[in-house]
Amino acid sequence: IERNLQAAVSGAGDGSAVTKEAFRQAVVNTLERRLFYIPSFKIYRGVAGLYDYGPPGCSVKSNVLAFWRQHFVLEENMLEVDCPCVTPEIVLKASGHVDKFTDLMVKDEKTGTCFRADHLLKDFCNDKLQKDLAISAEKAAELRHILATLDDLSSEELGAKIREYGITAPDTKNPLSDPYPFNLMFATSIGPSGLSPGYLRPETAQGIFVNFKDLYYYNGNKLPFAAAQIGQAFRNEISPRQGLLRVREFTLAEIEHFVDPEDKSHPKFSEVANLKFLMFPREEQMSGQSAKIIRLGEAVAQGTVNNETLGYFIGRVYLFLARLGIDEKRLRFRQHLANEMAHYAADCWDAEIESSYGWIECVGIADRSAYDLRAHTDKSGIALVAAEKFSEPREVEKLVITPVKKELGLAFKGSQKNVVEALEAMKEEEAWQMKDNLETKGEVEFYVCTLSKAVTIKKSMVTITKEKKKEHQRVFTPSVIEPSFGIGRIIYCLYEHSYYMRPSKAGDEQLNVFRFPPLVAPIKCTVFPLVQNEQYEKVAKDISKSLTAAGISHKIDITGTSIGKRYARTDELGVPFAITVDSTTSVTIRERDSKDQIRVNVGEAATTVKEVTEGIRTWEDVWSSFPHHSSASADD
Amino acid sequence: IERNLQAAVSGAGDGSAVTKEAFRQAVVNTLERRLFYIPSFKIYRGVAGLYDYGPPGCSVKSNVLAFWRQHFVLEENMLEVDCPCVTPEIVLKASGHVDKFTDLMVKDEKTGTCFRADHLLKDFCNDKLQKDLAISAEKAAELRHILATLDDLSSEELGAKIREYGITAPDTKNPLSDPYPFNLMFATSIGPSGLSPGYLRPETAQGIFVNFKDLYYYNGNKLPFAAAQIGQAFRNEISPRQGLLRVREFTLAEIEHFVDPEDKSHPKFSEVANLKFLMFPREEQMSGQSAKIIRLGEAVAQGTVNNETLGYFIGRVYLFLARLGIDEKRLRFRQHLANEMAHYAADCWDAEIESSYGWIECVGIADRSAYDLRAHTDKSGIALVAAEKFSEPREVEKLVITPVKKELGLAFKGSQKNVVEALEAMKEEEAWQMKDNLETKGEVEFYVCTLSKAVTIKKSMVTITKEKKKEHQRVFTPSVIEPSFGIGRIIYCLYEHSYYMRPSKAGDEQLNVFRFPPLVAPIKCTVFPLVQNEQYEKVAKDISKSLTAAGISHKIDITGTSIGKRYARTDELGVPFAITVDSTTSVTIRERDSKDQIRVNVGEAATTVKEVTEGIRTWEDVWSSFPHHSSASADD
Repeated sequence: IERNLQAAVSGAGDGSAVTKEAFRQAVVNTLERRLFYIPSFKIYRGVAGLYDYGPPGCSVKSNVLAFWRQHFVLEENMLEVDCPCVTPEIVLKASGHVDKFTDLMVKDEKTGTCFRADHLLKDFCNDKLQKDLAISAEKAAELRHILATLDDLSSEELGAKIREYGITAPDTKNPLSDPYPFNLMFATSIGPSGLSPGYLRPETAQGIFVNFKDLYYYNGNKLPFAAAQIGQAFRNEISPRQGLLRVREFTLAEIEHFVDPEDKSHPKFSEVANLKFLMFPREEQMSGQSAKIIRLGEAVAQGTVNNETLGYFIGRVYLFLARLGIDEKRLRFRQHLANEMAHYAADCWDAEIESSYGWIECVGIADRSAYDLRAHTDKSGIALVAAEKFSEPREVEKLVITPVKKELGLAFKGSQKNVVEALEAMKEEEAWQMKDNLETKGEVEFYVCTLSKAVTIKKSMVTITKEKKKEHQRVFTPSVIEPSFGIGRIIYCLYEHSYYMRPSKAGDEQLNVFRFPPLVAPIKCTVFPLVQNEQYEKVAKDISKSLTAAGISHKIDITGTSIGKRYARTDELGVPFAITVDSTTSVTIRERDSKDQIRVNVGEAATTVKEVTEGIRTWEDVWSSFPHHSSASADD
Repeated sequence: IERNLQAAVSGAGDGSAVTKEAFRQAVVNTLERRLFYIPSFKIYRGVAGLYDYGPPGCSVKSNVLAFWRQHFVLEENMLEVDCPCVTPEIVLKASGHVDKFTDLMVKDEKTGTCFRADHLLKDFCNDKLQKDLAISAEKAAELRHILATLDDLSSEELGAKIREYGITAPDTKNPLSDPYPFNLMFATSIGPSGLSPGYLRPETAQGIFVNFKDLYYYNGNKLPFAAAQIGQAFRNEISPRQGLLRVREFTLAEIEHFVDPEDKSHPKFSEVANLKFLMFPREEQMSGQSAKIIRLGEAVAQGTVNNETLGYFIGRVYLFLARLGIDEKRLRFRQHLANEMAHYAADCWDAEIESSYGWIECVGIADRSAYDLRAHTDKSGIALVAAEKFSEPREVEKLVITPVKKELGLAFKGSQKNVVEALEAMKEEEAWQMKDNLETKGEVEFYVCTLSKAVTIKKSMVTITKEKKKEHQRVFTPSVIEPSFGIGRIIYCLYEHSYYMRPSKAGDEQLNVFRFPPLVAPIKCTVFPLVQNEQYEKVAKDISKSLTAAGISHKIDITGTSIGKRYARTDELGVPFAITVDSTTSVTIRERDSKDQIRVNVGEAATTVKEVTEGIRTWEDVWSSFPHHSSASADD
């Protein structure tokens, strides 16, 4: 096992399933033992999909969030808001969550235990492909096809496959029910009457959309601007798996950048245009190629990324993740395939991080067009729109489409409304073409999206004309570009990327280390008196006071444990620096990964640690300006 | 109205109800207009008791929380944790919330609208006392007595009063149902089966208690230590009133300090012992006196405050609130009366802040003894205890109480269990006295708390002996001292205490100002070019960049609005400093409350603002080291 672990740790990227499992187990053991996280309500046997952050985990999380605020909210002057988790039904009805935020579920028909239908089918296919050596080539191809198209299967198709393959409930082997949709929102009731249904929000974004009008006003009625929100979101998963990656309650950090759909350029795009990193465009995925390093400027120029603003955020997300300590070689931006994207989305890229579970979606960056604001405008009757005021009135030729309702009613009866709406929603070009066709042929086939079929429109049913008008402003629904961060997933991947093992000095055991950058490290510094003695303790306590005053989180360890053991303990928490008090005038400062030590006057210790911690100086810089220290007692 | 407002603003303390209302309206108008907060889901007509923090409010909140972390978690080396909001029923059953976290509700018998029974009775009494001039002295006394004892009334007593006074539903005047308890927790269901009931946590504390064992281990199995948590909590209020003070979802910051019940001294108590502030001990309340300024050291020495640790936290809370900008004259620490406290609590003090709604409980500081850990130990079967290891084994005489269950069963039948538990729970002294009495008189009256009556214990029913034992450690359930902060309430009171009005320079209108200290201010600085011109704009943008790099939140305003109007806008957001660019080499920095201005070189502007903002220098210090500036253009 030790060898496997080592292999996994050094080159986890393409390790086998076994070494990946072993690597994950080593990380997770360290995380749990040192209380980075704790299964929630453990003394009551826990609840699947709920985890606590213990002290170091909580600290990592608050460091990540503080950096997020600095990197996005402060740098980009975003409007941060903070909305409740409890959300009335009408809001989530408008957003589509009440009707569509579902997973397909099957039940063990005897015990009532619930499973995700797609998970069972996926497990069956994987299992068969791995273990059934006698499987035919066609069969294998069939199963692989199912795995590739799993997300596209309808309830009926899933049910048919489950029956066809004779899949039964895990453990009990009982028959399974047909798949049916289960809404993933936690339901509750607001107030005592029982008449106001509500849900725990499945995302924080809706809180921003419903406030668009006020936020636009707050921003001086100017576009573009971005609003941001950090908060808890909830998904009542059917049967959570994948540990910290698939949980029922999690922290999201979301940005909604509102922009004129006719101008998605970004004034600061040039600042990120030269960044190069792994991108995985739609085309490469479809043609079976792999992700490749692309210059962001090129991706936007060639239209691979839909627009500059989307590109700008991709660049900023890349910088954010890299600064946190995510390994760039295991970070890629993958474009959604056409079938993955919501129908209204213009383009969508996920920042995926490779972990022992495979490539994990950690940040979604989507151009959601005007969908959300339109949905809330329709449901609430409040126009969530922006206006561009013209410096002088413009004469415009406006397309006027006038459906003749009487004729349409006679022809289409109950479907009249759908046809009218579809006619009114025609784009300029489409309308002129229809006008032409109607004039030449008298009638035309017209596809009505909401009826999923084409109907025949006759000349008498619609008039299409041009009108000249003076306009003082252009009123429009802004597009929204949404970078949405799963904070817990990012942190878990960061744990895996930061973890490594190294032999103890005596070589008799493997020690765990997290190579967190100071920005992320839960504790920035530990202070040890080398031996237990009153003078050293006093020095240690004085340094501790200075560190507190400087706002540097630290730990003082005055136990008599060997210095090597004390270093090992703090390496396991990813503490980047250790101050060892071995005299009353000067101390040593040790850097975690190199184990290099410098000698510094007592009075300078706290400031030096503050400077390297806050990135004012690098360790290299510090290393070259102080005397070096090599001690037999170190790391023994 | 203007005059009333002025009166209210200058001396809000004891203004009449009218001026208090007017003052509150002025504050709330400013807060809502500038998006400090927004009624949640406003475009859907909102939900009572749910509010969003808009950009400046969100920023104030995150400043308050960052300072809380610095002042408590970092300074005291607390173990911060972060637990989910969704909580399984068993945890809240153990804590008592499932059975007891209720308010008494009455229903309009025709419309079904729900009301808090005590609110209706309170409104009735207040109304009668204020408006019924013909009321008799006895009647008035009776109503005042009801108001004073409102919290003690049982469901039956409340119902009887409502019937006696003929109180009907507000608005409809329909008859009301009898009062019945409504549980204030939001209920939900965890997972798809419908078999795992859960609730949204009503406080964050339980997440800490259930983790006691792991946290104690993390702390090296040493007491005392404190754990802390910041997070959302939820109360499904029957009919929320009092705006931002009584809400259905709110942020709590809670500390659970675990301590040996036999030693509640605190090593750092001397650091707060000399603080003096308004305290309102139980005795003063009972005897109709008012709160008085007491030195904290004295309050602890005289036993007014139960112990040093409780006293230490009272002192730290005082410092915290004062640093935020809470007016010390409108802050008091009120001790709970015996009937207010939970039966297990050793002592409890509320930090109350005076607002236009009266004195508001914003922080509760309670010595909850061993109640919570015991409750979870009982329910989970996991011992949440600490141990004091003896350096050498101690010979101890142990009290052994052995109830003779057979005899007790015969005598007390169904109540046997209560009697057995009460006997076993006797303290040393009480037990010896019982032994004496049983030996001399053969029987003794014994009060059983859980039966609310005394029973007769005979000699045959219990044996009480001493046993000598060698013990290596003392195992005990720690006491917990809990400071619990209602962050939203503190922030609202801070708004009221920070708000004032002053005339514009022309004297033609009243301008709103929030005198937030820089620590709290949502934006630390604004940057204005005095006039619209390219050179000035460039300087402004350069300064803005330096401020961003220094992590100082700021706003740049390049609109052509008059400088006076721009100052007024930022005063309304409580921005403490404004940099006005009126040359390309030097700029002015204006302090919000004094309106004093200094002249500073362009290159020094950002650092100077950073220093005064972060408290490295005071404004007085800065004022004395830079040339002063007086300009005709200022504040016009």
